[in-house]
Amino acid sequence: MPERRSIITLTTDFGEGDYYVPAVKGVIRTLSPSTEIIDITHLVPPHDIYTAAFTLLCCYRDFPKQTIHLAVVDPGVGSRRRPVLVAAGDYIFVGPDNGIFSYIYDQEENSHVVHLTSEHYFRQPVSDTFHGRDVFAPCAAAVAKGVEWRMLGDEIDDPVRFSVPRPAVLSPRQIRGAIIHVDRFGNLITNVTRAELTQEMTTGPIKVRVGKYEASRLLTHFAEGGQNELFAYFGSAGFLEIAVSKQPAAKLIEARRGMEVTIEC
Amino acid sequence: MPERRSIITLTTDFGEGDYYVPAVKGVIRTLSPSTEIIDITHLVPPHDIYTAAFTLLCCYRDFPKQTIHLAVVDPGVGSRRRPVLVAAGDYIFVGPDNGIFSYIYDQEENSHVVHLTSEHYFRQPVSDTFHGRDVFAPCAAAVAKGVEWRMLGDEIDDPVRFSVPRPAVLSPRQIRGAIIHVDRFGNLITNVTRAELTQEMTTGPIKVRVGKYEASRLLTHFAEGGQNELFAYFGSAGFLEIAVSKQPAAKLIEARRGMEVTIEC
Amino acid sequence: MPERRSIITLTTDFGEGDYYVPAVKGVIRTLSPSTEIIDITHLVPPHDIYTAAFTLLCCYRDFPKQTIHLAVVDPGVGSRRRPVLVAAGDYIFVGPDNGIFSYIYDQEENSHVVHLTSEHYFRQPVSDTFHGRDVFAPCAAAVAKGVEWRMLGDEIDDPVRFSVPRPAVLSPRQIRGAIIHVDRFGNLITNVTRAELTQEMTTGPIKVRVGKYEASRLLTHFAEGGQNELFAYFGSAGFLEIAVSKQPAAKLIEARRGMEVTIEC
Repeated sequence: MPERRSIITLTTDFGEGDYYVPAVKGVIRTLSPSTEIIDITHLVPPHDIYTAAFTLLCCYRDFPKQTIHLAVVDPGVGSRRRPVLVAAGDYIFVGPDNGIFSYIYDQEENSHVVHLTSEHYFRQPVSDTFHGRDVFAPCAAAVAKGVEWRMLGDEIDDPVRFSVPRPAVLSPRQIRGAIIHVDRFGNLITNVTRAELTQEMTTGPIKVRVGKYEASRLLTHFAEGGQNELFAYFGSAGFLEIAVSKQPAAKLIEARRGMEVTIEC
Repeated sequence: MPERRSIITLTTDFGEGDYYVPAVKGVIRTLSPSTEIIDITHLVPPHDIYTAAFTLLCCYRDFPKQTIHLAVVDPGVGSRRRPVLVAAGDYIFVGPDNGIFSYIYDQEENSHVVHLTSEHYFRQPVSDTFHGRDVFAPCAAAVAKGVEWRMLGDEIDDPVRFSVPRPAVLSPRQIRGAIIHVDRFGNLITNVTRAELTQEMTTGPIKVRVGKYEASRLLTHFAEGGQNELFAYFGSAGFLEIAVSKQPAAKLIEARRGMEVTIEC
Repeated sequence: MPERRSIITLTTDFGEGDYYVPAVKGVIRTLSPSTEIIDITHLVPPHDIYTAAFTLLCCYRDFPKQTIHLAVVDPGVGSRRRPVLVAAGDYIFVGPDNGIFSYIYDQEENSHVVHLTSEHYFRQPVSDTFHGRDVFAPCAAAVAKGVEWRMLGDEIDDPVRFSVPRPAVLSPRQIRGAIIHVDRFGNLITNVTRAELTQEMTTGPIKVRVGKYEASRLLTHFAEGGQNELFAYFGSAGFLEIAVSKQPAAKLIEARRGMEVTIEC
């Protein structure tokens, strides 16, 4: 059986047209020739820490254990915001301490957060505007090569985290949630999971309202939906979603992230 | 000489901004650590089976023999549409049975199509909306690791296929074809190949009409075209194409996929 | 320590939706199974040789020595423009002789340029419209596998190069430069480096003017900027840049590549 190569994934808002992503890859490749680099995405909207955190949440566990997830959406680069490494469950995360790992802290008990201060691992000179290349990539490469993560700095217990948006149970028959992501297909992903439905909702039919529109059926897959029918289903990341078969629901009902969603039965 | 790693390519309509592509890659990497994953494209327009089929047609043979081509444009996910594996020529294809492999069936004689039913290879639990991650990726990874493709299910002889769009020879001096793809440069790719030209057309000059516009010269390369000149040429995938040097022909003449093209001599 | 694999990077204007990029990758992979392929970008605007050259400039040195940088923005494909290989410093470059390596010639003394004429390394038949697949990829793969670059053709001493745009020192207190790139964040990258500032400018405060707008502070990082404040800073590639914190400066001040910039003190 072949030896498993170390893996570093990349989640950034760098886009795909500039030198930022290849610079990060070049630095990793120079420092750790055998590490495999896999893109998660570079199309996080500029400065959108929340979308980066959500995307990482939905796929970090699909990667092999010990994978190092590098995540850089970093409007505070160069300021006093700390660079951190998070050892959480079977994974390592490296990036700015600005909330980007909030969902990870929420999912993984006993995570350890290290303030990256061992500057001799950094690329020198360290720029004030591109820590993805100068701090995060070389630290991730060091861990990929076998440096013990505890060597990269001191553990801290006050990482920045945002409140993971939770639905509110208003009554046994009504939950208020929100759209937390719109995907490429225009499907609307909410923050409601099966676990959050009330008992009344799990046994009877439910309706989902977004603005003045309503999805009146909970289906299992897209092809079940009637023409132009807005319907709900539990998606592949575990969240309740709203879609129209073969059409972008977001556009049809003018929905976007942050909008309120009501589940009723 | 280094051992050749198995290769899985990816052709999807998942886009590059969501967790769908990295989830597929993570699953493959977890199951088959040494397989190389190469993107063909993830920018197939949503639900556009035809474009995925065409893109695959134009490059699948450029990859090493035994490459496994995973192709997922799958509006019928979760319904009764079958998941399939196609062993065709020197390549393996994995994806939904919805016509996406029509060009492959057309190109490769003696292809074998297997209905993927060996569920113990699937990622569990299998979602109803993301078979790319839960069915196709793990089956492709199994084959990449050496599982014999015949083990993944029973062979079928009625795969879904669309009619490959062929030009019509109206007379020795006139062929009617269609635009089957518009590329990034705005070049128009038609379904006409050299083999389909009449004898009259191969010996004399030809004209190509699209709507009210006409390309009156058949050139060999772009720089030959005059300023703003619409011209024809045989492109790198073997099809007759229409372009304007350094400008997007599609925009200049308001052409798009599906439009009729007439070749005359 | 694991053996270092050869590396080929790709910089093109092919986009990410067509068969062009995977065809190039397939050809490389077929000819050189163990070479690693890393994308720099495929989103160079169509035919924009300058942007490709600039992107390469900003990251080519971040890759390991001996990396082969393939760069294909090639409006003259099929014409008499020469295909070339450039051995410059610790790197190899392969692409069309159209100026795309101008910054490399500028940065690296003693570069050697070879006209690629050893056709037995080419993919046959060679198309007239896709030398990325048929000429450049196979030549790069040959070098990656160990073929000495001098074997690929004869050395030439007249490669095409554009003048690298340099700022003009108008007086000890005034420099005139230009915007040479706008990045994904809308930050404006100029052609002015620290080395080009006058002594007066390095010791006192400077102002940067673009059209009717002025950046009156030179900061070190983004978060220092006040709300809606246009400010200047030296960016991660060494150039003076102009930005607005968390907003796209290019859009706010309607700036674009080629616009004049004045630095004053």
